[in-house]
Amino acid sequence: MPVLHYGTAEVQKPAEGLERRLVSLEKLMTAVLDFSNGPQAEPDPMHSHPHEQTCYIAAGEVLFFIEDEAPVHLKAGDMFYVPSGKQHAIQLLTQTARLVDSFSPVREDFLIS
Amino acid sequence: MPVLHYGTAEVQKPAEGLERRLVSLEKLMTAVLDFSNGPQAEPDPMHSHPHEQTCYIAAGEVLFFIEDEAPVHLKAGDMFYVPSGKQHAIQLLTQTARLVDSFSPVREDFLIS
Repeated sequence: MPVLHYGTAEVQKPAEGLERRLVSLEKLMTAVLDFSNGPQAEPDPMHSHPHEQTCYIAAGEVLFFIEDEAPVHLKAGDMFYVPSGKQHAIQLLTQTARLVDSFSPVREDFLIS
Repeated sequence: MPVLHYGTAEVQKPAEGLERRLVSLEKLMTAVLDFSNGPQAEPDPMHSHPHEQTCYIAAGEVLFFIEDEAPVHLKAGDMFYVPSGKQHAIQLLTQTARLVDSFSPVREDFLIS
């Protein structure tokens, strides 16, 4: 059945203070990221990937950084998106935050938990 | 700047009781759908599209229908996903609901508001 029940889904812990739950198709992946290690004094390191990315801020507040632009303050309900190959990062402004990240193509590196 | 601020974003109204705000890249689109026309006594008509789809339930509760499966009750935090071409539908169980739909490829039909 192509559903994910949050309460019983497999949970990946890619980093301290971060839980990831995900669904994946052939060309599309969506991951729910629950952060509990905020607020952060500075952003994560800038990084990039060939995958296109969208992000819906489901809870909390973040600063979004993307190359050649000033940082932007985003809160629940807002979104950001990242073209293929663009350097970007976030900085948590709240203790907890939930981000819903979608990628195309699929982040194969996320399938190895 | 590749962000969407919910409060000031362009709002599409594809149907009565439905608002849509979206971001789009070359192969990936994410749309925030705000429904205010629930609860529904029965599901929307089953439909399909070649685009792969994921959906994050940001608020409210829905029944999710997909061909060959029994309907599933989903609530905030849960997700469903739809392989290319599969018949599917939802039924709102609450008056309001927010769904965050992602598609690959882009739903060109959503770009004509």
